[in-house]
Amino acid sequence: MKDFISVRQLDEKNFFQIYELFKDYKNKYKSGETKLSDLKGYSVLLPFFESSTRTRTSFELAGKILGADTINISGSSSSVKKGETLYDTIKTLEAMQSDFIVLRHYMSGAAHIVAKHVRSRVINAGDGSHEHPSQAVLDAITILEKKGKIDGLKIAIIGDILHSRVARSQIHLFHMLGAQITICGPMTMLPRHLEQFNIDFVSTDINETLKGKDVAIFLRIQLERQKKVFFSTLNEYSIRYGLNQDRINLLKDDAIIMHPGPVNRGIEIQSELVYGNRSVILDQVENGLFTRMAIYRFLLNQ
Amino acid sequence: MKDFISVRQLDEKNFFQIYELFKDYKNKYKSGETKLSDLKGYSVLLPFFESSTRTRTSFELAGKILGADTINISGSSSSVKKGETLYDTIKTLEAMQSDFIVLRHYMSGAAHIVAKHVRSRVINAGDGSHEHPSQAVLDAITILEKKGKIDGLKIAIIGDILHSRVARSQIHLFHMLGAQITICGPMTMLPRHLEQFNIDFVSTDINETLKGKDVAIFLRIQLERQKKVFFSTLNEYSIRYGLNQDRINLLKDDAIIMHPGPVNRGIEIQSELVYGNRSVILDQVENGLFTRMAIYRFLLNQ
Amino acid sequence: MKDFISVRQLDEKNFFQIYELFKDYKNKYKSGETKLSDLKGYSVLLPFFESSTRTRTSFELAGKILGADTINISGSSSSVKKGETLYDTIKTLEAMQSDFIVLRHYMSGAAHIVAKHVRSRVINAGDGSHEHPSQAVLDAITILEKKGKIDGLKIAIIGDILHSRVARSQIHLFHMLGAQITICGPMTMLPRHLEQFNIDFVSTDINETLKGKDVAIFLRIQLERQKKVFFSTLNEYSIRYGLNQDRINLLKDDAIIMHPGPVNRGIEIQSELVYGNRSVILDQVENGLFTRMAIYRFLLNQ
Repeated sequence: MKDFISVRQLDEKNFFQIYELFKDYKNKYKSGETKLSDLKGYSVLLPFFESSTRTRTSFELAGKILGADTINISGSSSSVKKGETLYDTIKTLEAMQSDFIVLRHYMSGAAHIVAKHVRSRVINAGDGSHEHPSQAVLDAITILEKKGKIDGLKIAIIGDILHSRVARSQIHLFHMLGAQITICGPMTMLPRHLEQFNIDFVSTDINETLKGKDVAIFLRIQLERQKKVFFSTLNEYSIRYGLNQDRINLLKDDAIIMHPGPVNRGIEIQSELVYGNRSVILDQVENGLFTRMAIYRFLLNQ
Repeated sequence: MKDFISVRQLDEKNFFQIYELFKDYKNKYKSGETKLSDLKGYSVLLPFFESSTRTRTSFELAGKILGADTINISGSSSSVKKGETLYDTIKTLEAMQSDFIVLRHYMSGAAHIVAKHVRSRVINAGDGSHEHPSQAVLDAITILEKKGKIDGLKIAIIGDILHSRVARSQIHLFHMLGAQITICGPMTMLPRHLEQFNIDFVSTDINETLKGKDVAIFLRIQLERQKKVFFSTLNEYSIRYGLNQDRINLLKDDAIIMHPGPVNRGIEIQSELVYGNRSVILDQVENGLFTRMAIYRFLLNQ
Repeated sequence: MKDFISVRQLDEKNFFQIYELFKDYKNKYKSGETKLSDLKGYSVLLPFFESSTRTRTSFELAGKILGADTINISGSSSSVKKGETLYDTIKTLEAMQSDFIVLRHYMSGAAHIVAKHVRSRVINAGDGSHEHPSQAVLDAITILEKKGKIDGLKIAIIGDILHSRVARSQIHLFHMLGAQITICGPMTMLPRHLEQFNIDFVSTDINETLKGKDVAIFLRIQLERQKKVFFSTLNEYSIRYGLNQDRINLLKDDAIIMHPGPVNRGIEIQSELVYGNRSVILDQVENGLFTRMAIYRFLLNQ
């Protein structure tokens, strides 16, 4: 396992290996070991062809804390503007002796295609509407940290399942770890060929969906990508699928609320609930840093 | 004092503490100690929502020289493009365990608002037309270095006082340190409610203003922000308020000329005088590096 | 020799000094010494006013591997947007105690002009259509590595010679090292005053040109800069001057094919030949990293 492209590469044992590395790094950091040397002498190149704050920043900072040299490459100031193919860009980065290439790209399958052709370890930081595996791992770790287990939990994922790379990675990983998964959203945002997914229940009714759930994950409506219209108005989406206090009350008493961020306040989640007492959204961000440190280390250990 | 948002947070003792740290770092650097470890294991995140060379570069380099891990976040390639609120961006950076957040934002009060809500130390690197406190500190330090004192000096600030965050920070700090301050500019660029400011004299006549002054500070006409017209033509501004040799002769013999940069050559200052023998503009830049090192250290010491 | 602005600054002895440093760094890196301290305590500032992947990334990574603090400055997020002159930008970077300034600029002569006025060591990373000296050095090193010598080799350079800073630097350097140089391209892309150049042969016929050559260098058609039309269609250019298998057969049996990148696949070189067995394009990128390390060191040694 040279690369980390998809959650499908992980079995339960791999996931728990990453979790152990995560706990170790988090404990170390919290007890003051904020500068390590696990990646000293390694280079991490971060070609990002889509905007990002949390994913790019946390992969970059995770690399730096581990002692790596990190280099940002943005789509807007690179050879991509000169029409270079992704394949050539990545072959170029490999030739510069890069140890890790953390790639975000707008094309589904981008990371998979390039990983086959380079010796560098490729980490998929989001490819089109395909996968965002490090996000799913940090989400699973956050659930595990908060609920003590994943096996047997009832998890609802609400929103644009069809176009969400986050949902695609989450569903596979959470299923593999034993959770029962319900997806919920407008018909236009639900996948058509459900047999490809490990989904237990499908619903267009959020109130039915939330009842008795341990975890509710709200996906971002990606306004910046929306080319076609999948619902009549944002206001209607908010009324039909947004989280409000009444809907929180439908969940189990100790349920947690998650969102991969950035939240469209007032659309997916009512503004005052974003960092409410059920929300673990900032825990997701914090765990994202240590999860990415663990992923680098996990790949090095292979 | 967790954050550095405004010069109003500093008393005379604080300012001279920063000045001592500044002198110590400058001496060390000049004698070859160009890599330190005061901030080893600390992270400095630099969200900049406006263009900058000198402020961003000097805060970034100051952090690196002190051994910190630094991360740039620009408004144009981050989640801001996805509509994230500033508050959520900063909460996200805090969750990534950032020790320092150096924020430049186009909204007055931005740094103040976010600082209240995060454990990270927030440094205001310019917020709208409100304050630019590290610039005022480096300017005061440069005056002190060149003139041996600030108390009792006669300082003129010329230009768009009304919209200048630099002027707002300078006026308060220089006044607190005992200087006599004259502001000068077209009527449309002078603040209306002068009682809010610690200004000794106000003038629209630059020749009267410059007479017998120890320090003349020329502010940048911010062409990139100018939405309304505050003067008829740039040429007229240059003739009425620009620095030329005749006007230099009005100053004290040992007076110094300052500008926060970047200079609009030929507008605020005649091109051949920008780095003339009275100008300390490049000293301001040099001292900016060591002042920012001192500000990091000062906040850590609290 | 404070700066590296032009290959004209190098004599044969200088070139071979850089080559020795290159071999030393490459050997060290390949044997596991991937983190050095030759530039510890030095700062490298990289103002890039044109898009770049390989040049910027390799100068940045080379600096980091050698232990320097590196800072990126892009034209799009800096004071340049506020109308600052290049001269003032560079004086500002010098005032920040920068040891190295690696400058890419769209204006021919930019690096030369600023280098005269600063104490910082200035490296020209490409200036308009003038020179790209580090590219020519890494190309000469790659030829030397592959062919064991440069003296006496027959080298063809094909494409837009007139506007190519790469060609301008290559021709001078390869000639100085004893190669016989043929340039080839459409009439509209060949320089008019050939006496200024050390060119042995000029041709508009690529088939004639390639016969018996040791090295064939294909230049990038800079679609992003093309303001005037120098040929009727890209397809015609590709047919008349692009590399295909038949044309490879005209070269010497052990000839190598080079391109500074990024390749316009199907225009300068048929897509399937880009990384074919004659191509050393990725060796150029790899050697670029170690060449830039050598150039930093070479300037420090002066």
